[in-house]
Amino acid sequence: MATYSPYCKLKEVNSDSVRWTEGFWAEKFELCYKSIIPNMREAMNNPNNAAVFKNFYIAAGLEEGEHLGTFWSDGDCYKWLEAVAHVYSVTRDKELDCIMDQLIEVIGKAQDLDGYISTQIQLTDVKRWQDKRYHELYNMGHLMTAASVHYRVTGKDNFLKIAKKVGDYLYKTFKSRPSELAHFGFNPSNIMGSVDLYRVTGNIKYLELARIFVDMRGSAPGGSDQNQDRVPLRKENIAVGHAVTATYLYCGAADVYAETGEKDLFESLERIWRDVTTRKMYVTGGIGALHRGVSVRGDLIHEAFGFEYQLPNSTAYNETCANIGNAMWNWRMLKITGDAKYADVMELVLYNSMLSAVSIDGKRFFYTNPLRWYGKEHRLLSSDAYQRWSIFKCYCCPPQVARAIAWLHEWVYCLSEEGVWVNLYGGNVLETKLLDGTPIKLIQETRYPWDGHVKITVNEKTKCAILLRIPAWAEGAEIKVNGKPADVKVKAGTYVGIKREWSLGDVIELSLPMDVRLLEAHPKVEEARNQVAIMRGPIVYCLESVDLPNDIDITEIHIPHNIKLTPRYDENLLGGVTVLEGEAWRIPEEEWKNELYRRITASSAEPVRITLIPYYAWANRGISKMTVWMPLCYF
Amino acid sequence: MATYSPYCKLKEVNSDSVRWTEGFWAEKFELCYKSIIPNMREAMNNPNNAAVFKNFYIAAGLEEGEHLGTFWSDGDCYKWLEAVAHVYSVTRDKELDCIMDQLIEVIGKAQDLDGYISTQIQLTDVKRWQDKRYHELYNMGHLMTAASVHYRVTGKDNFLKIAKKVGDYLYKTFKSRPSELAHFGFNPSNIMGSVDLYRVTGNIKYLELARIFVDMRGSAPGGSDQNQDRVPLRKENIAVGHAVTATYLYCGAADVYAETGEKDLFESLERIWRDVTTRKMYVTGGIGALHRGVSVRGDLIHEAFGFEYQLPNSTAYNETCANIGNAMWNWRMLKITGDAKYADVMELVLYNSMLSAVSIDGKRFFYTNPLRWYGKEHRLLSSDAYQRWSIFKCYCCPPQVARAIAWLHEWVYCLSEEGVWVNLYGGNVLETKLLDGTPIKLIQETRYPWDGHVKITVNEKTKCAILLRIPAWAEGAEIKVNGKPADVKVKAGTYVGIKREWSLGDVIELSLPMDVRLLEAHPKVEEARNQVAIMRGPIVYCLESVDLPNDIDITEIHIPHNIKLTPRYDENLLGGVTVLEGEAWRIPEEEWKNELYRRITASSAEPVRITLIPYYAWANRGISKMTVWMPLCYF
Repeated sequence: MATYSPYCKLKEVNSDSVRWTEGFWAEKFELCYKSIIPNMREAMNNPNNAAVFKNFYIAAGLEEGEHLGTFWSDGDCYKWLEAVAHVYSVTRDKELDCIMDQLIEVIGKAQDLDGYISTQIQLTDVKRWQDKRYHELYNMGHLMTAASVHYRVTGKDNFLKIAKKVGDYLYKTFKSRPSELAHFGFNPSNIMGSVDLYRVTGNIKYLELARIFVDMRGSAPGGSDQNQDRVPLRKENIAVGHAVTATYLYCGAADVYAETGEKDLFESLERIWRDVTTRKMYVTGGIGALHRGVSVRGDLIHEAFGFEYQLPNSTAYNETCANIGNAMWNWRMLKITGDAKYADVMELVLYNSMLSAVSIDGKRFFYTNPLRWYGKEHRLLSSDAYQRWSIFKCYCCPPQVARAIAWLHEWVYCLSEEGVWVNLYGGNVLETKLLDGTPIKLIQETRYPWDGHVKITVNEKTKCAILLRIPAWAEGAEIKVNGKPADVKVKAGTYVGIKREWSLGDVIELSLPMDVRLLEAHPKVEEARNQVAIMRGPIVYCLESVDLPNDIDITEIHIPHNIKLTPRYDENLLGGVTVLEGEAWRIPEEEWKNELYRRITASSAEPVRITLIPYYAWANRGISKMTVWMPLCYF
Repeated sequence: MATYSPYCKLKEVNSDSVRWTEGFWAEKFELCYKSIIPNMREAMNNPNNAAVFKNFYIAAGLEEGEHLGTFWSDGDCYKWLEAVAHVYSVTRDKELDCIMDQLIEVIGKAQDLDGYISTQIQLTDVKRWQDKRYHELYNMGHLMTAASVHYRVTGKDNFLKIAKKVGDYLYKTFKSRPSELAHFGFNPSNIMGSVDLYRVTGNIKYLELARIFVDMRGSAPGGSDQNQDRVPLRKENIAVGHAVTATYLYCGAADVYAETGEKDLFESLERIWRDVTTRKMYVTGGIGALHRGVSVRGDLIHEAFGFEYQLPNSTAYNETCANIGNAMWNWRMLKITGDAKYADVMELVLYNSMLSAVSIDGKRFFYTNPLRWYGKEHRLLSSDAYQRWSIFKCYCCPPQVARAIAWLHEWVYCLSEEGVWVNLYGGNVLETKLLDGTPIKLIQETRYPWDGHVKITVNEKTKCAILLRIPAWAEGAEIKVNGKPADVKVKAGTYVGIKREWSLGDVIELSLPMDVRLLEAHPKVEEARNQVAIMRGPIVYCLESVDLPNDIDITEIHIPHNIKLTPRYDENLLGGVTVLEGEAWRIPEEEWKNELYRRITASSAEPVRITLIPYYAWANRGISKMTVWMPLCYF
């Protein structure tokens, strides 16, 4: 039961209307179901992990002990629950249903009578609402979202009842807009959560709560760029501060706009989006360049956007949660506008800076997603390790990855009065009803992203438009209907609508050009100057040292501007990936001694075969060196 | 009357033992005398400037008014006085003597009875020693140094008397090491100043005062990396925080070591020096990469060293005062050790990141010294302007430049028991006595840095070594004595001693190879990856947009690794400079639209004549674009 937001041009389909059938995302969904979710469950039962279920059991009076992990442990547990609910919407796995019900029961018992729940407060001497760093709103926000998803996919209201008590409590607490709470919360999942709750309950007070949360930020002195509460969102022009809290705010504000149509909110989001995408985003879609730094307005910031064009590679922070937040924000902007540019960013994140966070076996995770790595001699950011890990001191990212993968089938299609919008490509089946109630069934078959050919079979007789997203990189894409070129103008970076009376078995064929693209960055991005990044389709490639002979250093590889890179699918490599192979130049360098500058030592070049792998698949074969940007040579 | 520091291998010569005669530094000295110093005097009489003499007149009760300018205005006035004294040591210009005496008299009247002087405190409601940001120690430190120089060059004690009262007052205030003053002062010129006072008075208590100042830093909790008072210097391993306060501390500690020989102090300085020169220094010798940032230990820092290998070009802060501080520190390390590596850094700063701070006409100054500039579209650091300025909101840098140029003749030679050390090359005459008392006179003739040929005529009959510094870049340097190859091994990066019985008129000829050098940075310097900087002799070159046709953007110029660059001296350009001319590649780029990444657009290359100018001379021909690092191409 989807509810349609009045100010969204595109409407979501029901969670159980789409399922992956084969290929890339079907495999990732399966990985999520069979490996990521159970492995995370194990981690969250490990008292050494930063997010643990046990806190709920203690708060419920069912177990003894002290609060474990981080302030935001509860929220990360809810995110895992949300991921499970998404998987359940497709699999209808009774065991998952049972696992969810068990945990929901405990959560219900842990909840205070007045609706408040946050075990990091309930189990300690700290009073409620003392410090935004305690993440009470983050936790309760994720509860509301997880419960809304759970209700949508199961139809059961056991979790929703808890969430409504939370929503009612928060409404009571915040309706007077108490100025001492103006800068709560840090990482505002509560905005999305309130709107989610509004959408499943129809109770307007939860929408009002969401609006209050948006408006309170920056409404009192003492805010900071770190938490986007120095400048009210409606007046903000730039992306600044913590990149996760930023995207959560932007997502929440987009959700509010989707329901209320407040133009100034959307205009702010558009200004900030331009700032992100033209000055502050990595080629992988990752955001949040800095581990620690200072904002343009002088505030101490961490895990944050840098200055414009400040995009270092080896220290790129790109927290997994922020990258996925970026995708979630673009998903919302897409639904509001139907503009393909948002889908491009969304897809860019999904295949690259989201997927890089999880190992090929689904068991280990990265918190940060840098674009260059020096192996054992890498200077570590304090928030990550040399390799992906299974348990960690800050466990927000794994459930963020899990819910993104588990949820992705819902992002594939949208509906509008025109018909069906196809946002993403992958083997799947859609069975739903158009907005006018007529049923539609689409069968999508493709080896995308390894192959650019997508076949969509229409398995209902219906009259509507089917709108295919042509990625901005897909200049020269072609569309055929039943084997004949479609009578449409196919323009990259738009949705191309094919409107007709569809007959059972009609076939649309989309051919996306999968040539290898050599990318350059704006010259003001100093860290990418005279270097090249390589993409094919939506996939960003990288050079990893394990694919080079031992005696060649990764820094010695230079990419000729006219390199011929040939794709080769290797089903046995890294879960099945298409690698790019070609001949680059090795310009041998003398070893660097204790010096910072020296005469250029290269005097010769020799051709060398290189193999590039998808960026997301790096760091699965031991500690390695890696780079996305490589020196470019023109002659 | 030089005093010899016991733990310095090399001893200074008297201030009036050397004078520039012709060539590069003689012209800069003349510029300092005739333009920089009078123009600065005018600026410091302008109430809109940040440093003004008027404060002394008000404090002395000679004029009415309120304190003007910055907290550190006094110190900047003393630095100007110091520059005047240095110029006076050579010129014996009576007017300068008179100007100094007038101002010294006023300063004396402004001084409190107990010796304290700091007009920013005396003329306001603020009490003494309330906040290190008030720069009391910075001001009084520069007073002690300026007075010591004044006494050394004039023999008059009018300023020295004031300084001794200051020193006595400070000794009384700090001898008990009051913990509440543990983190005073910000920018510790007071350490150098105390040692300077000790050296001219012989009063050991001023040396003790300097040691107290070194030891107190970091001795109590609450310090910060910004001011190098989080970690005691003796335990520090890295260069961190404000780059001016850092070099002032290192200079002061080196001065203390020179007198006391405390090994752990020198070992700290060596560790920090390695960190700076192998990880945190620009190719121009500039230091302090960041306008604002965060230290590795989490402290908010500004005008500061960045992380290791973090050397952005367009936002490079490189405050003039810090660069000169770097030269001053290396000058001290050179005297302590006699190791040529310190002289290399010193010379690098002098010709590049020191001199870039002043316009060719000596009238205008830069506070920051970036290595890349985008012209009118440059994103300004808050502390500088699009062009050099004559008055400014923070006027510490101009007197720092003035005293460095005015003082430089003292850095040319040193003495040791072996003989005379030649540190710098330039037309000059040395007349002094060796440590054993025998007189020596050297006449140095050269067009260095434009030409590598240096002729030194010995005009005394004496037996000693003359030790010539061979810069590290000067592989293949040759030395002749009286036209015949000297029987010595000439190794770059060392001092080469020629020991013999010198006869009147003996001639040493040094030939330094002046080939153009293409430099690369360590690959971890991401902002210089696959780019090249160009040097000839000690001069760093840059490409400035005024030297390109209008239709060619500076970003389009690529430097082939085998480029042939020909030096050409142009006496009419920029005060007389040697430019480098050659043929590079223009790789035309399409104009960047509102995008951050795109397919590489370059498809062709055309040869283009380029002219490179010395980096120090950029920004003298209107608002321009400029870059030191340029894309490198290998084929």
